[in-house]
Amino acid sequence: MKINLNDNFRNLAQSYLFSEIGRRVREYQAANPDKSVVRLGIGDVTLPLPACVTAAMQTAAAELGDKKTFRGYPPEYGYDFLREAIRAHYASFGVSVAQEDIFVSDGAKSDCGNFTDVLGDNTVYMPDPVYPVYMDSNVMSGRTVVLLPSTPENGFLPMPDERCSTGVYYLCSPNNPTGAAYSAGQLKVWVDFAKASGSLILYDAAYEAFISDDSPRSIYAVEGANECAVEICSFSKTAGFTGTRCGYTVVPGTLMAGDVSLRALWARRQATKFNGVSYPVQRAAAAAYSPEGMAACMENIAYYKENARLIAALLDQKGIPYTGGKNSPYLWLACPGGMSSWDFFDYLLQSVQVVGTPGAGFGACGEGFFRLTSFGSREATAEAVRRLRGAL
Amino acid sequence: MKINLNDNFRNLAQSYLFSEIGRRVREYQAANPDKSVVRLGIGDVTLPLPACVTAAMQTAAAELGDKKTFRGYPPEYGYDFLREAIRAHYASFGVSVAQEDIFVSDGAKSDCGNFTDVLGDNTVYMPDPVYPVYMDSNVMSGRTVVLLPSTPENGFLPMPDERCSTGVYYLCSPNNPTGAAYSAGQLKVWVDFAKASGSLILYDAAYEAFISDDSPRSIYAVEGANECAVEICSFSKTAGFTGTRCGYTVVPGTLMAGDVSLRALWARRQATKFNGVSYPVQRAAAAAYSPEGMAACMENIAYYKENARLIAALLDQKGIPYTGGKNSPYLWLACPGGMSSWDFFDYLLQSVQVVGTPGAGFGACGEGFFRLTSFGSREATAEAVRRLRGAL
Repeated sequence: MKINLNDNFRNLAQSYLFSEIGRRVREYQAANPDKSVVRLGIGDVTLPLPACVTAAMQTAAAELGDKKTFRGYPPEYGYDFLREAIRAHYASFGVSVAQEDIFVSDGAKSDCGNFTDVLGDNTVYMPDPVYPVYMDSNVMSGRTVVLLPSTPENGFLPMPDERCSTGVYYLCSPNNPTGAAYSAGQLKVWVDFAKASGSLILYDAAYEAFISDDSPRSIYAVEGANECAVEICSFSKTAGFTGTRCGYTVVPGTLMAGDVSLRALWARRQATKFNGVSYPVQRAAAAAYSPEGMAACMENIAYYKENARLIAALLDQKGIPYTGGKNSPYLWLACPGGMSSWDFFDYLLQSVQVVGTPGAGFGACGEGFFRLTSFGSREATAEAVRRLRGAL
Repeated sequence: MKINLNDNFRNLAQSYLFSEIGRRVREYQAANPDKSVVRLGIGDVTLPLPACVTAAMQTAAAELGDKKTFRGYPPEYGYDFLREAIRAHYASFGVSVAQEDIFVSDGAKSDCGNFTDVLGDNTVYMPDPVYPVYMDSNVMSGRTVVLLPSTPENGFLPMPDERCSTGVYYLCSPNNPTGAAYSAGQLKVWVDFAKASGSLILYDAAYEAFISDDSPRSIYAVEGANECAVEICSFSKTAGFTGTRCGYTVVPGTLMAGDVSLRALWARRQATKFNGVSYPVQRAAAAAYSPEGMAACMENIAYYKENARLIAALLDQKGIPYTGGKNSPYLWLACPGGMSSWDFFDYLLQSVQVVGTPGAGFGACGEGFFRLTSFGSREATAEAVRRLRGAL
């Protein structure tokens, strides 16, 4: 072909992180077939969906099999029953969001990636280390990215500094991969900065249900955020929907750039390039946000949090600095003895057969750090802690 | 906000078609509450999903509710069981497609809209009238579009002409909205042109299951197409999945622009901005392509085709020129007496309370034409035909 492809793809870093982890684990297992490997690297949920959620999906499937209750194309922005359930979810922790500002999608990753469609040329700011989708979707669209280091000095929670000016800011709280969560006061600084500079905050709240302290579960808990922030959220980690696929993005009607409504642009983008979420999935999502569903989801989250507590207790005992675990399924620890991320990975694999995720895989500032997750089973987590106790 | 939004959105035509139809019908009904309106404008399926399809979805939902069978993130390009079912579907009509070239998605609309992400600056060609997603997604990304008129003279099937040079060509066959389908010979001309000019064809085969004659059901039935064509297809019209949401795009590994593989770019785009399709939906889709599922789907399609035959028989009897109906759920007719599309719409609504879709809504060359669809019930279709017999 002689057509032009998108040359920006040449600027993408190859994402070898999880394939490289897989390769090293496979090689180790091949050489040591008698050793059992415990994985605390996984960023995916493992507990099953609550019964009322699968029942809702099955009922909806049956409706699609009956001429009297069949449904065709869903509304592009989500059924009202689900948008209302999401509005009520926000209200349950005291945040007011208008139903018409809620756009249901097949997941936060899609919305994160697709949101660049409605933006023009802006300087884009994001933390380092970072969820790779923020970076890669901006590289693909040829935008300039400025990284804001997340370091022990700032508690892995970068704040606006002298390098920051009008632009688009990606914030994720509780953070993937560091597990750190902004306080209300810190978010207020970000919102004030965004309003003063005319910036847009793209706020990723995918882990909000893990918050245990008084950190805000939504940026809209902060006054003024509806004039400067879009919030992207998901059922994946709250309700175990990584395989079921449903998320949502809130674009307040109050977000204006000159005479143009950002909500109107996102609505047009979604109506043009998206055809709504599967009806049974939307019913399942609404069931997850019902009182019964949410109680079951919070039980699952409590299970993961107890795993996190077991890991955190060991790190405390060993005096290893870390963030996360309290408001997040992730624990982000400093590799002992100044080891590099990958050296520490190899050390744990070789010595005690525990697999985590090298922090360097999430950005340059992740070098020297390591991510453990609490999404495994209790048994696997306890075994990993037992082994780590000997190795650290 | 002082950030820059995507200014290309200012160049989008407002899409008033279906809202304008809705407005006129509502006003008519309010003024004439005793009249019953019959709708043949709908582009959405109405028959329920086959029993084996809903059963597969329910079983998969149950699996997600059980710790032993729970599944998290799906593979970004689709489960192997579904990619294999799609490969076998192609094989069932004699077309060879490699499993690793198949990318499962939440629908053809998403893939059509998102495919511009991997393309650079090219002249883009598409028929007029046209499915609005082709036009709008290219306007959003600031590309130059050249329209190829679909007229009675070319049987509503534009062919390469002197205006065509290296670029990206959207073809849809069987066509929405005209219902016309390219023959193997015509597609061969397109493929030869694309290869000679180094062009890319984006081939939309969403209506392939409606083909009754020997028109190709896939562009890959034509030799050389795997060097110049991407094919986008869907379960929506084949299996009644408009509300269930599943589609797929075939990007042959043989598609190269210089040293760059288009498949590698699409794979990276999808892995970055998409997280795969809901597991129960993928199971449902695979069930639709099973022998039992496909037999049930073809029964439904036969039902719609009989509706189309009833409408076509009337048009034949009245001597009204039309395309479609044979290889498509759509019939595209010339408005009698040289009426404009909207005048004819109003005439049918006022005189016999039959609602169709004004062709002008699909592009300038649609003016003077009108789309009727066969997706209604048999009863509604028969009643519409009875009424149209009096009015035409």
